[in-house]
Amino acid sequence: MLKYNIIIVFLLVIFIIDNLRFSRMILPMGQKSKAIQLHRKVRGKIEIKAKIHLQTKATLSLAYTPGVAEPVREIAADSKKVWDLTMKGNTVAVVSDGSAVLGLGNVGAKAAIPVMEGKCAIFKEFAGIDAFPICIESQIVDDIVLIIKNISPVFGGINIEDISAPRCFEIEDQLQDLGIPVMHDDQHATAIIVLAALLNAAKVAKKDLSALKIVFSGAGAAADATIRLLSLLQPKDIMVVDSQGIISRTRQDLTVHKKQLLKITNKKDVSGTFADASVNADVLIGLSRKGLFTQDIVKSMAENPIIFAMANPNPEVTYTDAKKWDVQIMGTGRSDYPNQINNSSVFPGFFKGLLKYRISKITDEMKLAAAYAIANLVRKPTSDNFIPIIFDKRVVPAIVNSLKKFG
Amino acid sequence: MLKYNIIIVFLLVIFIIDNLRFSRMILPMGQKSKAIQLHRKVRGKIEIKAKIHLQTKATLSLAYTPGVAEPVREIAADSKKVWDLTMKGNTVAVVSDGSAVLGLGNVGAKAAIPVMEGKCAIFKEFAGIDAFPICIESQIVDDIVLIIKNISPVFGGINIEDISAPRCFEIEDQLQDLGIPVMHDDQHATAIIVLAALLNAAKVAKKDLSALKIVFSGAGAAADATIRLLSLLQPKDIMVVDSQGIISRTRQDLTVHKKQLLKITNKKDVSGTFADASVNADVLIGLSRKGLFTQDIVKSMAENPIIFAMANPNPEVTYTDAKKWDVQIMGTGRSDYPNQINNSSVFPGFFKGLLKYRISKITDEMKLAAAYAIANLVRKPTSDNFIPIIFDKRVVPAIVNSLKKFG
Repeated sequence: MLKYNIIIVFLLVIFIIDNLRFSRMILPMGQKSKAIQLHRKVRGKIEIKAKIHLQTKATLSLAYTPGVAEPVREIAADSKKVWDLTMKGNTVAVVSDGSAVLGLGNVGAKAAIPVMEGKCAIFKEFAGIDAFPICIESQIVDDIVLIIKNISPVFGGINIEDISAPRCFEIEDQLQDLGIPVMHDDQHATAIIVLAALLNAAKVAKKDLSALKIVFSGAGAAADATIRLLSLLQPKDIMVVDSQGIISRTRQDLTVHKKQLLKITNKKDVSGTFADASVNADVLIGLSRKGLFTQDIVKSMAENPIIFAMANPNPEVTYTDAKKWDVQIMGTGRSDYPNQINNSSVFPGFFKGLLKYRISKITDEMKLAAAYAIANLVRKPTSDNFIPIIFDKRVVPAIVNSLKKFG
Repeated sequence: MLKYNIIIVFLLVIFIIDNLRFSRMILPMGQKSKAIQLHRKVRGKIEIKAKIHLQTKATLSLAYTPGVAEPVREIAADSKKVWDLTMKGNTVAVVSDGSAVLGLGNVGAKAAIPVMEGKCAIFKEFAGIDAFPICIESQIVDDIVLIIKNISPVFGGINIEDISAPRCFEIEDQLQDLGIPVMHDDQHATAIIVLAALLNAAKVAKKDLSALKIVFSGAGAAADATIRLLSLLQPKDIMVVDSQGIISRTRQDLTVHKKQLLKITNKKDVSGTFADASVNADVLIGLSRKGLFTQDIVKSMAENPIIFAMANPNPEVTYTDAKKWDVQIMGTGRSDYPNQINNSSVFPGFFKGLLKYRISKITDEMKLAAAYAIANLVRKPTSDNFIPIIFDKRVVPAIVNSLKKFG
């Protein structure tokens, strides 16, 4: 009888353990509905809070009429005081037209809201910045520029997000004299974090930056900005490959922006495929599509190769495959493998620094400074750890501090 | 010796009491710097908060990538879901171009920020609504309309504020088909609270609404909306007086809006001054300037006169003078006298109701319903209490509830 009891208990334990394991296994499959449930429950991932409680006559008459007339008068007389007497100094607009949201494409302004809200929540949680989503219906450059210019009084910075190329270039260019920093995050925050990662990866590979042959897969907005920033360090060569092959002078199909890249890439004006470009490459940087980095391509690289495969959520080569093919120095955009290279590590601290030092325009020097500051947080880079994780509390203050000299 | 001690202690006590009294006396004079100090200390009266803490991989991957892709996809497939999966359903834009801020005039977008922040703080504190200030540089109607239309995705309602006439009329008119309610608060919230006050004041005066002769001093935006709303109750007559006299058919200088008022006012087409209009008036409503209601004018009114003197901060007639001149039923815009008639009592609850019942367009019926709901909160109106104070916790739910039937 006792024997049966023991068997029953044993079977029950097995059953429970198995169920627990099973419920963990299906977690990734359940993430979808979990995300929807969360969004449906909170109905907005950010909220506005009053910093002053207004439920008494005394506070209401200071924060609203008649007291509020005083800061109004002071700002009307001297517009610079808007920085001291309003929310401007700590407030950023997260602006999108929904034309290039995540990997989902042109989903429009309404569908972009969850992403922009998430970004605003990150701004607050990671850097204490008050950010608000401005999701614009029009996808016409002139409209977007007019809108951003006109709503800028209350903001100390503009974070442009998920706007498709080439309009993102034009919008950013036209707004550089707004008097507050305007940055297309997908471009420049990506450029900064890739540079930071490369600075340390090169140390791990014991390679000199000036000796690197770097090949880009992808020539979109993020790649464009990253190529431009990396070129400032004067590597041996950078080659850029889009869906039509290596960007070279022989190509007749190049956009203005891709043509401009020829000034800083492909010194020997080589034509060919991505496989051609990758031969003897020291670094492959993927800002393109899942699976493009095949075994042959990876195997054709130089010794001690470095790969950043940042297509999201499925990288150009998986972490597991890369390791199998003898790539030791590997980063992806994913949080479930070592060396996550993600622009979310950059924008909170970068904007915090811009606001703190009241910087009105972003320069290449600032991006370089931020990249070095991030890289320097990893004292002894190894193949498993050459870039700080997004939750590293030292990242934001390090970036902020790196911008001090520009204030 | 003891005698001297007693005298010294006595003098000290007198000195301390006197000082205490003096420090209280100068408080009103010190309000100016107190308001500046407060604004300088908080640097923004509102802030953004994340509703979800993002400091773990699990929450970040649900609220941001990759999880956020799910609500994006759902909204892209069915745009109505934006109400369930984002902040839209509880979020209002407080929009101004700074052209008519308080009594200070055209101070511009930057100087308008403290007022709009204050309004946003009131929205949250009184009604739990997330409101954000949109302060627009351009003062061109077409620009403002284009901007509001384009940034509307993230908002469930638009509160237009402190925009000068006639542009405020045009902007509001052009946006009525936006799909979310658009209201010029200075106009319609004022109209609602004045009507609520009048409903109860008439009870105190034992006068029938249909028997009232109502005279308006001022024909600006707030007066215009109030006149239109009051006219729906078909009082005996309404006369409107601007700086050039009674608005009548003989006037050659009338704007389009003032001409339209002739359809619902001045039935006998009387010309003349404000003094002429006021003879035998049952109600004087001031939305104009300090001191216009003189003793002679007040004394010329009908028996049991009602006066709402809402010029701020200095009313058309002070509460003290009105009482001295035998006016028992008196309201002002000020919080330091009985019967404060202030639009701040209206907009938090009105927008909360609009959002709760997903009302896409505001009608006169809704304004009437809100006014009756506010008036009905005062069970037994008296001359000292015919309108609920702004801190009365019953006001917001009463207004919300009054809009239920329009949802």
